[in-house]
Amino acid sequence: MKYEKYLELENVLPADIERRSFEIISEELGNVSLEKSLEPVIKRVIHTTADFDYLDNLCFSPDVIEKALEAITQGACIVTDTQMIKSGINKKELAKYGGEVVCFMSDEDVAETARITGTTRAVASMDKASKLDKKIIFAVGNAPTALIRLYELIKEEKVKPELVIGVPVGFVNVVQSKELIMKGDTPYIVSRGRKGGSNVAAAICNALLYILRDGENQIN
Amino acid sequence: MKYEKYLELENVLPADIERRSFEIISEELGNVSLEKSLEPVIKRVIHTTADFDYLDNLCFSPDVIEKALEAITQGACIVTDTQMIKSGINKKELAKYGGEVVCFMSDEDVAETARITGTTRAVASMDKASKLDKKIIFAVGNAPTALIRLYELIKEEKVKPELVIGVPVGFVNVVQSKELIMKGDTPYIVSRGRKGGSNVAAAICNALLYILRDGENQIN
Repeated sequence: MKYEKYLELENVLPADIERRSFEIISEELGNVSLEKSLEPVIKRVIHTTADFDYLDNLCFSPDVIEKALEAITQGACIVTDTQMIKSGINKKELAKYGGEVVCFMSDEDVAETARITGTTRAVASMDKASKLDKKIIFAVGNAPTALIRLYELIKEEKVKPELVIGVPVGFVNVVQSKELIMKGDTPYIVSRGRKGGSNVAAAICNALLYILRDGENQIN
Repeated sequence: MKYEKYLELENVLPADIERRSFEIISEELGNVSLEKSLEPVIKRVIHTTADFDYLDNLCFSPDVIEKALEAITQGACIVTDTQMIKSGINKKELAKYGGEVVCFMSDEDVAETARITGTTRAVASMDKASKLDKKIIFAVGNAPTALIRLYELIKEEKVKPELVIGVPVGFVNVVQSKELIMKGDTPYIVSRGRKGGSNVAAAICNALLYILRDGENQIN
């Protein structure tokens, strides 16, 4: 490229950019001490958002990383509440363990159920997911109604997720839906407050997958 | 739902949540005065991220909304640098004007070109897009190399975009790539600094589409 003089790194490939980005994040975190097991997740979310608020926002249930990795290696599928999250997850890595990503939001039967019962497609898609005969990780990046419905389904013992990634974003019912999911016994990773999103949900899933892929050689 | 006592709004449908969210954003913006034409874009990005930093980050070239809407109504296609952006754009709204969203990042020939020339797939996908015989809006939410390549292609008169949405996120070459695109004559919407992302790129595209859809009735 001809405009390298403007750039921090010249002729860089994506892997180099990623490596250098994690170095910068570590530098800027300075003396902040992160729990070793959580570090890859926290740093990848900051990498995805350039938003250091996630250092404080992200909440983890006890031993959640260990439990999440076990679920993935046992072939858990990931259920998302947006097609964007599904697009963003590294499906090739997940497939190594027999898992796949599913999103029911665009399904005809889900739209139909939502119409008939006067609820949201997000709620109907969680109901549909609860009938899967598989280990499930839920990744909710958009709809607080999905997270609330999930809380109800867990209470009613209709589903027993391996992990709930609860990171919807927004201004209405979002904060509350996250607090609700943190009350229960289900392993969770939650971005407390208003922030989150499909990008954050995908980043958390990928962070978990890359811990498995890179093992001791991970870049963060 | 049984847990309504926790919620700001009870029994809400997505359209109500969105309307109330925009009201909250307006309330919290208080006396900040936004240029009328830019308001729907700025508010939708804040809605998507719950991050008020975008109030200051977002930069717009002169008359960019008018130009963008004209391009869309004339059937411009939107070229993205991630599948996530493509997933997030309201393709049904875009199709009303004959437009479609294309992302070449996963194309075999793009991967092959990147391998042979030792560049990134993002660069190769911009090269491929420059050969499209259509009006193009570029939406770059991830790769600074895509934005830099776009700048070069414009300089070399190999492409003449109707609009560049330049919102890559990250720590390496990102800030610089955005400054570069703002130097030129191409209409742009850019998130100055490190922040941005696929979610932000999709939100900007949708904000433009919803201005056309809702006209005077828009909710923000």
